[in-house]
Amino acid sequence: MTHSATRLIEAKRDGAALSADEIGWLISAYVDGTVPDYQMSAMAMAVYFNGLDPDELAAWTSAMLNSGEVMDFSDVAAAKVDKHSTGGVGDKISIPLAPMAAACGVAVPMMSGRGLGHTGGTLDKLESIRGFTTRLAPDEFRRILVDHGLVLAGQSETMAPADRMLYALRDATATVPSIPMICASIMSKKLAEGLDGLVLDVKTGAGAFMKTVESSRELAAALIGVGESHGVSTVAFITSMEQPLGAEVGNANEIRESIDVLRGEGPADVTELTLTLGEAMLELAGVEGGRNRLEGAIGDGSALDKLIEVAVAHGGCRSVIEDTSLLPVAPLEAVVTAPRDGFVVRCDALAIGEAAGGLGAGRERKEAAVDPGVGVTLRAKLGDRVSAGDPLAVARYSDEAKWEAQRGRLAAAWKLSGAPSPVPDLVVERVGGTP
Amino acid sequence: MTHSATRLIEAKRDGAALSADEIGWLISAYVDGTVPDYQMSAMAMAVYFNGLDPDELAAWTSAMLNSGEVMDFSDVAAAKVDKHSTGGVGDKISIPLAPMAAACGVAVPMMSGRGLGHTGGTLDKLESIRGFTTRLAPDEFRRILVDHGLVLAGQSETMAPADRMLYALRDATATVPSIPMICASIMSKKLAEGLDGLVLDVKTGAGAFMKTVESSRELAAALIGVGESHGVSTVAFITSMEQPLGAEVGNANEIRESIDVLRGEGPADVTELTLTLGEAMLELAGVEGGRNRLEGAIGDGSALDKLIEVAVAHGGCRSVIEDTSLLPVAPLEAVVTAPRDGFVVRCDALAIGEAAGGLGAGRERKEAAVDPGVGVTLRAKLGDRVSAGDPLAVARYSDEAKWEAQRGRLAAAWKLSGAPSPVPDLVVERVGGTP
Repeated sequence: MTHSATRLIEAKRDGAALSADEIGWLISAYVDGTVPDYQMSAMAMAVYFNGLDPDELAAWTSAMLNSGEVMDFSDVAAAKVDKHSTGGVGDKISIPLAPMAAACGVAVPMMSGRGLGHTGGTLDKLESIRGFTTRLAPDEFRRILVDHGLVLAGQSETMAPADRMLYALRDATATVPSIPMICASIMSKKLAEGLDGLVLDVKTGAGAFMKTVESSRELAAALIGVGESHGVSTVAFITSMEQPLGAEVGNANEIRESIDVLRGEGPADVTELTLTLGEAMLELAGVEGGRNRLEGAIGDGSALDKLIEVAVAHGGCRSVIEDTSLLPVAPLEAVVTAPRDGFVVRCDALAIGEAAGGLGAGRERKEAAVDPGVGVTLRAKLGDRVSAGDPLAVARYSDEAKWEAQRGRLAAAWKLSGAPSPVPDLVVERVGGTP
Repeated sequence: MTHSATRLIEAKRDGAALSADEIGWLISAYVDGTVPDYQMSAMAMAVYFNGLDPDELAAWTSAMLNSGEVMDFSDVAAAKVDKHSTGGVGDKISIPLAPMAAACGVAVPMMSGRGLGHTGGTLDKLESIRGFTTRLAPDEFRRILVDHGLVLAGQSETMAPADRMLYALRDATATVPSIPMICASIMSKKLAEGLDGLVLDVKTGAGAFMKTVESSRELAAALIGVGESHGVSTVAFITSMEQPLGAEVGNANEIRESIDVLRGEGPADVTELTLTLGEAMLELAGVEGGRNRLEGAIGDGSALDKLIEVAVAHGGCRSVIEDTSLLPVAPLEAVVTAPRDGFVVRCDALAIGEAAGGLGAGRERKEAAVDPGVGVTLRAKLGDRVSAGDPLAVARYSDEAKWEAQRGRLAAAWKLSGAPSPVPDLVVERVGGTP
């Protein structure tokens, strides 16, 4: 049925709920050009102000999902479970997590985006492994998943084209920070992966898109609602993003830290979060054994072997993973030191991420390349006690002018105090499913 | 200075006030194509929700005004005063008012729009006088004003192009009903007329755009604020639009009723409102004499002579005004009668206007022509007592199928009751200036 876009905008502007038929028409008419950008942006702003109720959100997501290809892995016997993070600084969790879950028998058809902003996304990080390609045709994607139980690729151009169009429009019209539209954007791409289960890591805090636990809970509930309404078992964890995850912020250095986790030598926070999310993946896949089984896959080397196996399947170089000193490292180095004695009471994820991005670890435009060897290594995190002159961080970079531009921002990310303040819990809470 | 449209939309979305510099940039960048429609429509929706404060509104109006030509009649000695109505059914007031004020010595450079919706605008009504042209080049406009103290023309294409662009965009994006944007649209065109004073007739009630006295007051205050901030003395009257003004709704028939007013034989409500607004025009122009002087211009025929004089200057036919039986009349006629005895407790302006529009007195698209002889003559108005079978209205039309489509709507516009209900005051209140 044909509708009037003006009338639908008016209804949403006035706080009415749109029907599934109206939403389906709107999204497909936007994709085919019947509804122009200028009407869709007014609708996006009306949604920004008035939201979408759960039925509208499910319909909106379905319409975006069905604007493109939807994968079908029903012929793959293992349960397909993916994990998605709303994004944080130093968030390399997918890289140790996916092979660990796959080593335990979960099929993981993981599609990721590229980062815009501070540091690269999972794809950029993986591409710092020499030869690793993340651009796969649909049949290659399927073949790697079937052969190895894990595939780590970029989102296909044929999936959810409505999301790509709408995201670009929202980005230009200040309508990105809308929980229902964020939810629809995430879920339209994840549901296209043909999943049985989905584990969500909803970041909260100063370094996250969602600054408060309340807004993170709201997003988590919306994501779970949409997942369940589409028959995908969905669990979310709200996790802290006040300070970066682990010690490494960048691309190649985050691969190195991820491999450390798979060797059982990773930082406690990255290891803990990987195990927490992994347990939920196993649970949703119906795989027995829980945390013990995941720890076993570290202990017996099968998780690391899975990463090597899948990296090779992606064209990547095995020896870089076996010897991480072969990963790219930027040529220049500088140390940020503590100006006085004290306890670290702030280690600002956003400032550190932005400084790393400014040094070359991230991109501002989609077409730009990241410099894989650039990054920041943290030497002091929340709760640590330091003396004047101790290193807070080591930065690696390729361009002295960029360092001059970022050094102040990086140094200002730490705040020292005479008394320690409480360190926030890494995992704030689990939402959805049976814990 | 160059700004980021996305950042300005974000600021307005979050309820911040934009600077005059930012607003000036936005409007001029929109007109020159730097800011695309899809950003401007998102901004319009943000303004719909968060409004504009008085300084922003003044800047927004200035930017729209300065997007095009602004007339300068400082060489015309008489004070230039215009009147603008927010639009109602049967609202022909400009037609008797402008010549009456001009006959008393006020210079009236009146530019009007064409109606969209129920009946035609002032231009359409005037064009039912054979030969009357409202499309004037700027030098013709000036010459008629200088020679006759009155000119009645269409808005020039060179005036406030930002308003034309933005209005079309708002119309397609459900962002028309925003008091600040309505105000900026009206005032950007009126201020381009090079006025000393402006009298506003803000309609209120079921047949008006503003349904409540509160919203009408808000619009009146915004209009006055913008006028005064631009050095134009501005007064507003909030007047009732529950039922149509006068007995005639259409185009040629409204000209006939207007000429009746200039002959001293008009309906009481049209005559009263014309005199009320005329008094304010004289007051703003610094012309002595008030209502008595206006009544004198009716009594001595000078107001009617002024209409004839200016109509001839516009190419119009004198004899049509002298003998209104020469005005066009549609060939078919039907009478709506009272279904029972009773008092008229509703005489719905909007329904009557829409029925007249449906018969051919209005247009739905800009390009369409109105049928000047089509219209409705009211025979019973609020408070009147009627007996079953008495005429409530006489419709004149050219197309039997249109009458079949409209007769039910027209008949349903009246409600009869066993007891009369209070008739709303025509002039609710004056806002601004010294009464």
